[in-house]
Amino acid sequence: MERRTVTNSKAPGTGLVIRNLQARDIRFPTSLGAHGSDAMHTDPDYSCAYVVIYTERDVEGHGLTFTLGRGTEIVVQAINSMSSMVIGKDAAEIFQNFGAFWRQLTSESQLRWIGPEKGVVHLATAAIVNALWDLWGKVENKPVWKLLVDMEPETLVRAIDFRYITDVVTPEEALAMLKKAASGKEEREAELRRIGYPAYTTQVGWLGYTSDRVKELCAKYLAEGFTAFKVKVGQNLEDDKRRCAMVREVIGWDKVLMVDANQIWDVQQSIDWMKELAEFKPLWIEEPTSPDDVLGHAKISQALKPLGIGVATGEMCCNRVLFKQFLQSGGMQFCQIDSCRIGGVNEILSVYFMAKKLGVPVCPHAGGVGLCEMVQHLQMFDYVCLSGTKENRVVEFVDQQHEHFENPTVVKRAHYQVPIVPGYSTKLKPASAEAYEYPNGSKWQEMFSKGIFPRPAGKFGGN
Amino acid sequence: MERRTVTNSKAPGTGLVIRNLQARDIRFPTSLGAHGSDAMHTDPDYSCAYVVIYTERDVEGHGLTFTLGRGTEIVVQAINSMSSMVIGKDAAEIFQNFGAFWRQLTSESQLRWIGPEKGVVHLATAAIVNALWDLWGKVENKPVWKLLVDMEPETLVRAIDFRYITDVVTPEEALAMLKKAASGKEEREAELRRIGYPAYTTQVGWLGYTSDRVKELCAKYLAEGFTAFKVKVGQNLEDDKRRCAMVREVIGWDKVLMVDANQIWDVQQSIDWMKELAEFKPLWIEEPTSPDDVLGHAKISQALKPLGIGVATGEMCCNRVLFKQFLQSGGMQFCQIDSCRIGGVNEILSVYFMAKKLGVPVCPHAGGVGLCEMVQHLQMFDYVCLSGTKENRVVEFVDQQHEHFENPTVVKRAHYQVPIVPGYSTKLKPASAEAYEYPNGSKWQEMFSKGIFPRPAGKFGGN
Repeated sequence: MERRTVTNSKAPGTGLVIRNLQARDIRFPTSLGAHGSDAMHTDPDYSCAYVVIYTERDVEGHGLTFTLGRGTEIVVQAINSMSSMVIGKDAAEIFQNFGAFWRQLTSESQLRWIGPEKGVVHLATAAIVNALWDLWGKVENKPVWKLLVDMEPETLVRAIDFRYITDVVTPEEALAMLKKAASGKEEREAELRRIGYPAYTTQVGWLGYTSDRVKELCAKYLAEGFTAFKVKVGQNLEDDKRRCAMVREVIGWDKVLMVDANQIWDVQQSIDWMKELAEFKPLWIEEPTSPDDVLGHAKISQALKPLGIGVATGEMCCNRVLFKQFLQSGGMQFCQIDSCRIGGVNEILSVYFMAKKLGVPVCPHAGGVGLCEMVQHLQMFDYVCLSGTKENRVVEFVDQQHEHFENPTVVKRAHYQVPIVPGYSTKLKPASAEAYEYPNGSKWQEMFSKGIFPRPAGKFGGN
Repeated sequence: MERRTVTNSKAPGTGLVIRNLQARDIRFPTSLGAHGSDAMHTDPDYSCAYVVIYTERDVEGHGLTFTLGRGTEIVVQAINSMSSMVIGKDAAEIFQNFGAFWRQLTSESQLRWIGPEKGVVHLATAAIVNALWDLWGKVENKPVWKLLVDMEPETLVRAIDFRYITDVVTPEEALAMLKKAASGKEEREAELRRIGYPAYTTQVGWLGYTSDRVKELCAKYLAEGFTAFKVKVGQNLEDDKRRCAMVREVIGWDKVLMVDANQIWDVQQSIDWMKELAEFKPLWIEEPTSPDDVLGHAKISQALKPLGIGVATGEMCCNRVLFKQFLQSGGMQFCQIDSCRIGGVNEILSVYFMAKKLGVPVCPHAGGVGLCEMVQHLQMFDYVCLSGTKENRVVEFVDQQHEHFENPTVVKRAHYQVPIVPGYSTKLKPASAEAYEYPNGSKWQEMFSKGIFPRPAGKFGGN
């Protein structure tokens, strides 16, 4: 494959050698407030495995993958085990042929056995790759969405590993799609800078919240201009009906309601349960069953289509091969990419191309730690350069953990505002990283002292 | 769910408290001989994450999950992180309602995010669960196949978590299947003890072997009574043709040839390449493409059916939900369960039930470290209690690493002989475990000293 320089700022192979990569276990004690609680994840401590890439120059890359607390130490171990594939490499060379590097990372001949391209090793890949994109943005002095928007189509396509997806999209097709969508780019970028990208809120409907809190939050977000609201369901049908009715009462019937079961049901149960909730006119049912069950989702989609309910999934879809099948099979009417689950920006780009090809709108999953910060860049790229439309598209927004980031997401009038600081918006405030590093950070030590959480056993058998 | 005692040897809750669980990183330097080399895994060091469960009585459980070397430390970390869900539990209670315990292990509300039920955490689950079955066998003084054969159907079905698979098989159906197949059990068990279960060999066709070695090994295994031979393909078409022709020349056309691509191709490429190899009349093409691509395998199966070539896959199929879809879709004509990839005996049993229901023969994957030792138990259970037939069924056999086990697999006249020692045949010889523990075992220290392998960096960034 031909190599070419990406920018004029430096010649290939000069001056951006990666000298170190550090992985840290950062956990926020969100379980104390039932924030993020759903049918399957009853007590999450929103956390991340946080990567900093140091170069020989005065520029760093920051990246992360989101986790729910326990197990973050396993992802950190995986990042450490993979670090030797990154340290010593020239980042400028990586960026020129990023897809080839991505394949090296994900296809290491011994390590791939314990994936491949799924679970812990793929989350570790995401954290590393996200840090590399942050670094690239900083080197180019652009936020990642703008880096992507300005990138030569050939360079962008070369960032993608098309292995296993050429039956849906080839590099040549991807290139043609970008070139075809080039018309109108400037107008869309200008409009995006003016208005932003529409968001919906999940803040109103965590399972652990009381009725009063739900109503209060609905009113608050409605007043802020939100028009789409998501509610967690699946633990108790009568309770779900009560909550959906309550939300509809506050938001009215002209607004959009989505419901989210977080994988609690089997296939037939999904269909039966959603028939009971159809009266509340949800736009979609999210994650009705196993995130691996393509054929199950296709069956559910078929059954719910006459009721006007679509199926949304993707936040736990483990790689592009699963996404490919969800898109091929009609098992997904809304494609919910996540910025940390699959192997970083490169693999997510491949999903955008497949979704465009097969005509499925992408509505990213966000929330957690840093997901909003990252995913806004991707969706803005898609709008300007690929899909060219916001129709049927909206990005999840959860107003949590943003205070720990140096350049947090800005949502105004229910729209994500374009990030302007160079990079991928992934840098944690040093004070937050220090305080919440598990288990030695000052906040954790304080909570252990007070008996709010037990001190963990050695590395970390503690539960 | 009703609880009942499994055996008469003890009352529930008495006397089998698990007091500790230890995980070790054991690696054998097989890359030195190109043993196990294939199109995707060019230099494997066959390894395992090895678990020992200690109880308050004088009985231990030994279990493992197979790995290829690098990354084993990540699986060991995952086992350590999960150990608190096991330590302190009463094993006798676990066994009485094993499916419920299995769900606890795989659905831990924070940890499941980094799976769920796939990759590193699921390999760790397999190692732990396999050790529990070994313990159960020892407590009952039976090899695991016989433990399963003699088990009350209700207890066996209660060991399975049916979440996400009830659209194919329910607990009630599974129970009925066992009861229906009960007739003839004694005769089949007696026959199995006399003759054993048929094996095929993969020993003849690793990609790293020379032509002379391949021919010599074909002749050797032919003389031992083997009638089915598997060859690795996929790196170079002309080389594949030469190797297949060579093997056919030695084994003749009345014997069975299988070919294995280890995921090297895309969907269309799989079809094109196999059309070129059809002249050698392979029974199956194994792992033509991504192990996650159900629809891709279905397409390949359709295209190759007229050529008389089936598709086999499963060794990297990450859980029962993927198996369900492969079986539902016609993407798998031979179901290759693996004893360590999905979550241990419990989940594999669910695959046997689905395969039986949907009429697909199970031909287990084996080789590696301990896979032959474990999988023989499962296939023998299936023959005696469920499928009741050996038709179209055969178990892989690779004659490597058996010398490290206290009770290695015995294959005579190309048939696995029934294991007679209580447990799951999973105990490593203490001397082997000591010598090959990575990186501090005596053999590894010796190889580092001689410069045969580099000393690893701290935990283990070394590559």
